[in-house]
Amino acid sequence: MGIPDTAAVVVAAGRGRRLHGGSDGQPKALLNVAGRPLLAHALGNLDAVEAVGNVIVVHTPGWEERFRKVAGRAARLVAGGSSRKASVRAGVAAVPRDVQRVAIHDAARGLTPPAVIERAVTAVSDDVIAAAPGWPVRDTLKRVGDARRVVETVDRSGLWAVHTPQVARYETLSAVLEWAGGQRRFPLGLTDDLGLIEAAVAAGVVTGRIVVVDGDARDLKVTYPQDLDVAAALASAADASGTRGDGVVGR
Amino acid sequence: MGIPDTAAVVVAAGRGRRLHGGSDGQPKALLNVAGRPLLAHALGNLDAVEAVGNVIVVHTPGWEERFRKVAGRAARLVAGGSSRKASVRAGVAAVPRDVQRVAIHDAARGLTPPAVIERAVTAVSDDVIAAAPGWPVRDTLKRVGDARRVVETVDRSGLWAVHTPQVARYETLSAVLEWAGGQRRFPLGLTDDLGLIEAAVAAGVVTGRIVVVDGDARDLKVTYPQDLDVAAALASAADASGTRGDGVVGR
Repeated sequence: MGIPDTAAVVVAAGRGRRLHGGSDGQPKALLNVAGRPLLAHALGNLDAVEAVGNVIVVHTPGWEERFRKVAGRAARLVAGGSSRKASVRAGVAAVPRDVQRVAIHDAARGLTPPAVIERAVTAVSDDVIAAAPGWPVRDTLKRVGDARRVVETVDRSGLWAVHTPQVARYETLSAVLEWAGGQRRFPLGLTDDLGLIEAAVAAGVVTGRIVVVDGDARDLKVTYPQDLDVAAALASAADASGTRGDGVVGR
Repeated sequence: MGIPDTAAVVVAAGRGRRLHGGSDGQPKALLNVAGRPLLAHALGNLDAVEAVGNVIVVHTPGWEERFRKVAGRAARLVAGGSSRKASVRAGVAAVPRDVQRVAIHDAARGLTPPAVIERAVTAVSDDVIAAAPGWPVRDTLKRVGDARRVVETVDRSGLWAVHTPQVARYETLSAVLEWAGGQRRFPLGLTDDLGLIEAAVAAGVVTGRIVVVDGDARDLKVTYPQDLDVAAALASAADASGTRGDGVVGR
């Protein structure tokens, strides 16, 4: 892969309301998982990827000092915005202009192994303008209505659950964010950054392929309180074995 | 909950081809996870649920002796069929007629904690004829085509990923299986047992509600090789803490 040509933007501006029973609390990225803040796991895993030369952490406003303590000199800090989209925009604005690729990662997925990150990063080359790890949906999917009543089963064939980092060419991402900023009506329901690029491809703003690569069960997104126990178990096992992230999900 | 009124059918007839690189190998249920076969974890977690009075293990044909060694006297053994559906049918046929509820579980989800199993079992009462644990889909969903190209983003709102055990009233399940057996054309793509009951409700064969209850990240379905590492980490943590399965996934 040669010299580092990729910047990582770690979105860590969330308040973790679902973790704190609906109220504000310590930001999710600062929560302790197996002896270290979740953010420290994310930074350690990114640091192990050769291609990643710059790391920008988008922190929760008002918590800069605590984030600085965790990030040390390993990352540049940028204050988050009022939405995930605004936070991503702030992070990407801080990316050095000479990088080839930007990996937008989520601190809540701090345990994603280096091998998974690297797979997504290296997939972005030639006509592939964006990539993210994931896996074919393995659970049955149901549409659920009021009072948790099952309404119908949804066909899962061909569906992938997509994780982060979501990696894109820097020039593609810049063009897409500029285009999106000028749209008066934009699909606000988008839950990810690839979705924005998909919309831009559909609109003819950029061209190229968007692909998925093999993810890993350790890509867990810490969302609910008991996820912390699971994350701690995974992190302890990874630390003990010293073999972080060489597991490949097959098809 | 009073006396045990629920039978569990543990489907363990899979060959685990995705775990063995596409070829037949040791059945998935017998694979070692943190010092014990996956099936032993499943049986231990079921045993900790007061309502469960009978356990039937549907084993891989040709492996009865090994399964007997793991199950001991904790479960009755039944040989699996040529499909998951046939295996479920064989297991349910072995259920004592005086039970109120049947919990169809998957040995691949052997780490599902007792609290999750109990939640699904106790949900089946009054007009609720079936229930299963799960959680709102938290990953972005993409439809993926050839060469892993992302085709589109799928709206995940209202969608739940559903795990096992899938629990149903015994009389409901019996009626539904009888009805399904008589159908010449039946949706064979069904990936779960609740789906069969949904179809029967839609056809007017049975009436009642089907609901989802809070699952847990430990409900992991062991499918791919690296899932075994993750499962081992989760199982070791559960064994060490001695507090299996009291984590509740919030909304």
